[in-house]
Amino acid sequence: MPELNFADRLLAAIAEKKTPLVVGLDPVYQQLPAAITQQRELNDAEDIESAIDAILEFSTRVLKVVAPHVAAVKINSAFFENYLWDGVQAYHDVVQEAAAHGLIVIGDVKRGDIGNTARYYAQGALADPDFLSLDELVGPDAITVNAYLGQDSMAPFLDVAREYGKGVFALVRTSNPAAAEVQDVLLTDGQPFYMHMGKLVEKWGAGLIGQRGYSALGAVVGATNPDQLAALRQALPSTLFLVPGLGSQGGTAKDAAKAFKSDGTGAIINASRSIIYAFKEEKYKDLAPANWEKTVELAVLETKRQIAEALGQ
Amino acid sequence: MPELNFADRLLAAIAEKKTPLVVGLDPVYQQLPAAITQQRELNDAEDIESAIDAILEFSTRVLKVVAPHVAAVKINSAFFENYLWDGVQAYHDVVQEAAAHGLIVIGDVKRGDIGNTARYYAQGALADPDFLSLDELVGPDAITVNAYLGQDSMAPFLDVAREYGKGVFALVRTSNPAAAEVQDVLLTDGQPFYMHMGKLVEKWGAGLIGQRGYSALGAVVGATNPDQLAALRQALPSTLFLVPGLGSQGGTAKDAAKAFKSDGTGAIINASRSIIYAFKEEKYKDLAPANWEKTVELAVLETKRQIAEALGQ
Repeated sequence: MPELNFADRLLAAIAEKKTPLVVGLDPVYQQLPAAITQQRELNDAEDIESAIDAILEFSTRVLKVVAPHVAAVKINSAFFENYLWDGVQAYHDVVQEAAAHGLIVIGDVKRGDIGNTARYYAQGALADPDFLSLDELVGPDAITVNAYLGQDSMAPFLDVAREYGKGVFALVRTSNPAAAEVQDVLLTDGQPFYMHMGKLVEKWGAGLIGQRGYSALGAVVGATNPDQLAALRQALPSTLFLVPGLGSQGGTAKDAAKAFKSDGTGAIINASRSIIYAFKEEKYKDLAPANWEKTVELAVLETKRQIAEALGQ
Repeated sequence: MPELNFADRLLAAIAEKKTPLVVGLDPVYQQLPAAITQQRELNDAEDIESAIDAILEFSTRVLKVVAPHVAAVKINSAFFENYLWDGVQAYHDVVQEAAAHGLIVIGDVKRGDIGNTARYYAQGALADPDFLSLDELVGPDAITVNAYLGQDSMAPFLDVAREYGKGVFALVRTSNPAAAEVQDVLLTDGQPFYMHMGKLVEKWGAGLIGQRGYSALGAVVGATNPDQLAALRQALPSTLFLVPGLGSQGGTAKDAAKAFKSDGTGAIINASRSIIYAFKEEKYKDLAPANWEKTVELAVLETKRQIAEALGQ
């Protein structure tokens, strides 16, 4: 049974938590607070069980801290897939945990393939599993995808989004330094390639627009290029932006503010390492590392404040 | 310890088996021969264990049939990820099984992310696992990646390729119908976008060239567009092409032949459904479904013959 359109659900959750901030979970065993890794008997990153156990505890504690303050979390699959099938199970454990907190869960999986194959990625990565042995399991509310293969590679994801009331964010302009050599090349009509991709996303998403005027197909646009963000915001009125790159990647709240319309809607802003590893930052050194959860909470509140200020709220 | 360059290994295996044909494993429970699904007690696609068990048996039997005849197999991760973590474990089981047959294994995973994240995908999807509990496990010999994020998203995969003697195939021009709207747009310098991407791949691969003059970084270029294949072959002298789209997707051996240089090197050609599901084809109806393995073998031999003929061998 189709639920409420994903974009409407996301906008309602943002309104409730009064922030478009999304916390990104990129857990790396070697980066975790000593309070978590030292209590493991094996204390050995080469031991999968020990490492996953630490990552699960860390993720669970971060989710508990951030759940009252933000609408959504983004869980980065790479940091779990590194641990092969056990890691994939842990990824799904974290998805369940986040969902149980009432958080909207974005699975950052960046899948994409030709239509016949994409159907199976959409089923595994986005749909709620339909297996007898897993009948309580939910998939994430949304995932990221790579749309380089075009419309027929996207269709299976959009079908699942429609059927389950879920969302999809397609890569348009990413936040990494080398993105420009691929995504910023100019086309004969004068527009950069990312703009072409953005307009395709806006077009593909037209069949999934909710009551608030936004589509369940959104776009990933980095915070590290505010001018491009502004141009895309102008050109893609129905597309919600997932904006990574805040904090550790160098984007500021002021940069990210370009992703929003004047009514304050239009985007969610992701910060990962600057929040989950806040205990490493100079300004929180009096609390860290023993009270690392407090530093996560303070970093969330501070980032929320910065975003609100940049949005003039 | 670095092994032989992947391109050299692949070329040697092609010479030994006298064919650039690669068999693609895209196993779908509902498509399997009745001989395999009917013997399952549950006979229920919604039961993960039963479905995976059937897919594993099918894959194992296909590998045994094709191993004497081809150099490499391509295992499509999507058809395993559909079954979540148990499916991922089955994917790795099939990788081990194929490697045990001496086949070169291409993991068709199409991963890609910003550098900080791509490191973990490269570790999980391409490197040989470095965990105490999995010390006998090997990763695939090569994987497919999506290079839309540019050079810094590729670097971690290339680092693993260098360290482990492995290979990477980046999507350049895919075989699906809608690829054109993204990949064929013209740039201001007159070249289509896929050519720009292809030249980037050739450039990124320059540091991984083996003794035979080909790089361990190859390109995925569909068989469904022979003119584009010819143009790319001309422009990218050091890049090996992985050419999907033969058979069920409509590409012919004659089309795929454009991927080769006059010396007969330069590409591998993948056929998936037209081989593994050959028992469904009219011409093999006297053997199918009971003798489905024989139809797989006949389809491999026939496809090899068609490719050899198209290459004038």
